[in-house]
Amino acid sequence: MGSVGIIGTGFIGRAWSVCFARAGHRVSLWDPVPGSAQAARDFIAHMLPDLDRFGLLNGSAPEDVLDRIDLSASLADAVSDAEHVQENAPERLDLKIDLFAQLDALAPKTAVIASSTSALLPSAFTADLPGRQRCIVAHPVNPPHLIPLVEIVPAPWTDGDTIARTEALMRHIGQSPVHVRREIDGFVLNRLQAAVLDEAFRLVADGYASAADVDACMRDGLALRWSFMGPFETIDLNAPDGIRDYVARYQAMYRGMTETMRDSADWSGPVLDTIEAERRRHLPQEDLRKRQIWRDRQLMALAAHRRRASGL
Amino acid sequence: MGSVGIIGTGFIGRAWSVCFARAGHRVSLWDPVPGSAQAARDFIAHMLPDLDRFGLLNGSAPEDVLDRIDLSASLADAVSDAEHVQENAPERLDLKIDLFAQLDALAPKTAVIASSTSALLPSAFTADLPGRQRCIVAHPVNPPHLIPLVEIVPAPWTDGDTIARTEALMRHIGQSPVHVRREIDGFVLNRLQAAVLDEAFRLVADGYASAADVDACMRDGLALRWSFMGPFETIDLNAPDGIRDYVARYQAMYRGMTETMRDSADWSGPVLDTIEAERRRHLPQEDLRKRQIWRDRQLMALAAHRRRASGL
Repeated sequence: MGSVGIIGTGFIGRAWSVCFARAGHRVSLWDPVPGSAQAARDFIAHMLPDLDRFGLLNGSAPEDVLDRIDLSASLADAVSDAEHVQENAPERLDLKIDLFAQLDALAPKTAVIASSTSALLPSAFTADLPGRQRCIVAHPVNPPHLIPLVEIVPAPWTDGDTIARTEALMRHIGQSPVHVRREIDGFVLNRLQAAVLDEAFRLVADGYASAADVDACMRDGLALRWSFMGPFETIDLNAPDGIRDYVARYQAMYRGMTETMRDSADWSGPVLDTIEAERRRHLPQEDLRKRQIWRDRQLMALAAHRRRASGL
Repeated sequence: MGSVGIIGTGFIGRAWSVCFARAGHRVSLWDPVPGSAQAARDFIAHMLPDLDRFGLLNGSAPEDVLDRIDLSASLADAVSDAEHVQENAPERLDLKIDLFAQLDALAPKTAVIASSTSALLPSAFTADLPGRQRCIVAHPVNPPHLIPLVEIVPAPWTDGDTIARTEALMRHIGQSPVHVRREIDGFVLNRLQAAVLDEAFRLVADGYASAADVDACMRDGLALRWSFMGPFETIDLNAPDGIRDYVARYQAMYRGMTETMRDSADWSGPVLDTIEAERRRHLPQEDLRKRQIWRDRQLMALAAHRRRASGL
């Protein structure tokens, strides 16, 4: 199994390392900040036992997963025998342009060079590279070791082999790759999130519901079916004769709603005071970190549940 | 514990019956179509063992839950000693106006009269009733015995006591009530669904992704966190200093996306051919019913998981 170079070892880089290492790949970490890669490896060592308890290490022991993760002395070392490079630098265009030039020069000609960016289009930082055909975006959801979705976004010049190999690798390590066929801001996932957030802010801004009640509508309502089917399969099963039947029955009703969604609320306007005050009543600022740990344990339990339920 | 009259015994009425009966309430079924209430009770008898296996009967035996569900000979009988009436008639305004007039005349003055409607505003069918202050919408998600969310939607004249009692009853039987403070088409839940579906159809219509990949973005990505947090809590935990920090970092990025969401695709246009063909390749028309059974078993397993995970 090929080696993977992880460039940038913040939260995303660390989670990616777990994804690749638990699937049996050797992983080389590199970060320009001294000590950062070591801190990342320590962090991973700390989280592996918890993942093991939830059965999320593909049958490997935590120490074996950790053994597959090495620190590299330089960027060149990290990618020297890589089959796949996963870049996780801050979302700054100048930085990505510079980094991709180095990666394209240093990585074996056969390696795929993938960026974790959620905010930048691949054509914006790969246009001038000799190896631009092997550059691609593989955008994960935070944290990828608990959330399998990865958006595979080619630039116009990314070749089909690079797309196919990236998708195959992602599938091999147990992620769920989707193919975004053309570049678009937000790709697919964050566009769906944008649509929901925009309506959510509008509903609270206009006084129809509390933020907690909007959250409940999603958590205890919509997201249950969506968490194992998605929106199209949900409506395909929600009318006797499938999706065409559903659209015939309900399109007019939905159009009445979407026509009133043209104007966005200013998310940072007075509605933010309302929502923030409500959130801080439910969760004081000093408890945010504790709640993030709770979130990650919920994601672990849910991932374990999904593995069991996939056989139903 | 007070009795509940279930008026209309299609899928929603049946599921409501299970919700109330497993929580210990006596339930009286009535449907204008001869034999329908009996068919509903038989259907419920058939589904209870499965719910029992997943631990979803609140500790009652299936036969005890069934024993609490009676057939009524008339509308008057079904509501004669009701504390709560839950109406589940077809979504036709003339029909609801007629039915609510009867229910207001027949039910004890102390009963709350609730409609399951998703499409009609409560003010449209309760305005002229002497007891209009005790009429309300309690909109479930299908099926309510597996999806806890209930939208409580008062008309302008619904009194506070009716709102409070309906919310308390829903909480008591283990549902998750949210308060929609003012009438709006689609309430909250279907407006969030509308926002997602509209962007989903647009993305497929414009060739950015397949329907299956849009579904995967939700199923294996967004909906995981949303299924135990909702969208606001998700972003509150997705920036170091909470939701205000998140909005400061990302509002501009999201605004760029929502500005390109002003025009809807025609859901019943060519994109429907594309999506339907894709869905029917994954799931032939004749397998729709089988897949609905799979969906309900997935919902049962997820409901059981959520009860376990709530202690994490």
